[in-house]
Amino acid sequence: MNYGIVIFPSKKLQDLANSYRKRYDPHYALIPPHLTLRNVFSTDDDGHIKEIADKLRNIAKKYDPFNLKAYKISSFQPVNNVIYFKVDSNPELEGLHNDMHGPEFLGLEPEYAFVPHITVAQKLSNDEHSDVYGSLRMMGIDHEEIVDRFHLLYQLENGSWTVYETFRLGKD
Amino acid sequence: MNYGIVIFPSKKLQDLANSYRKRYDPHYALIPPHLTLRNVFSTDDDGHIKEIADKLRNIAKKYDPFNLKAYKISSFQPVNNVIYFKVDSNPELEGLHNDMHGPEFLGLEPEYAFVPHITVAQKLSNDEHSDVYGSLRMMGIDHEEIVDRFHLLYQLENGSWTVYETFRLGKD
Repeated sequence: MNYGIVIFPSKKLQDLANSYRKRYDPHYALIPPHLTLRNVFSTDDDGHIKEIADKLRNIAKKYDPFNLKAYKISSFQPVNNVIYFKVDSNPELEGLHNDMHGPEFLGLEPEYAFVPHITVAQKLSNDEHSDVYGSLRMMGIDHEEIVDRFHLLYQLENGSWTVYETFRLGKD
Repeated sequence: MNYGIVIFPSKKLQDLANSYRKRYDPHYALIPPHLTLRNVFSTDDDGHIKEIADKLRNIAKKYDPFNLKAYKISSFQPVNNVIYFKVDSNPELEGLHNDMHGPEFLGLEPEYAFVPHITVAQKLSNDEHSDVYGSLRMMGIDHEEIVDRFHLLYQLENGSWTVYETFRLGKD
């Protein structure tokens, strides 16, 4: 089974992201707009999910709700033609991300450096990418909100994601 | 904001439901397969969601995990051309449903009698309905699993649903 760990931002920010994703992100129908804390990982044993949830419950307790600030529109080009809302890093985001990649969790090192972001466009051709990036960058973004939870998800056979459990920051 | 309260069954049952929904349910991309405990309701005040979550946390504590048994394929025709996995009712499902419609919750009486089900086809024409119902009914279903949680969702502007919070049965 495939799992992932994400933050769903407020409805307001999700609606804004979806206004772009609808046209530019083929994952639009598979998952709501999100900030990925831990990229897809899989375990053979489906019973393993309860153990992962227990670990996440302990990680969630360590951090208080924090301010999420999306401050510009950026791109991973030339690595990937992915356009995203860039989110200001902070100790809570770094801490959550590190704990979810540490030896006590599943011990897998992150594939990339952690760049907190909310994807709004991906799998674009180079030409599409320059067009879309050009116009989105001009729009810009300036948004702040409080994040007080994250979610553990699993993937269905059709590629879509279902939430297994929510973890509230700073709570038991 | 629009809210709903649902149970997401296991991946196995969701994958099976999706194999039908893909062709026969226009809500396929908006929400994973689910059993609705409380139909869509709205509140003007977005801050209200925390209060609703508090109430649901108390309701969840009252019930232990229970056995969900989907035992036949049925239809709401002639009321609606909706085909579904019929789920055996039990005290926990009845109790959860009643608590979520009681005076202490939001006090709105349910629109229909509670028929626990997982929709696999809807918005079919009469002809489509008889075709699809005929073939699905022959396949039948016989599935049991343990349910230990339910979810509070809210709806985005595009009609899709995001999970706000998970509530584990019998837990604080």
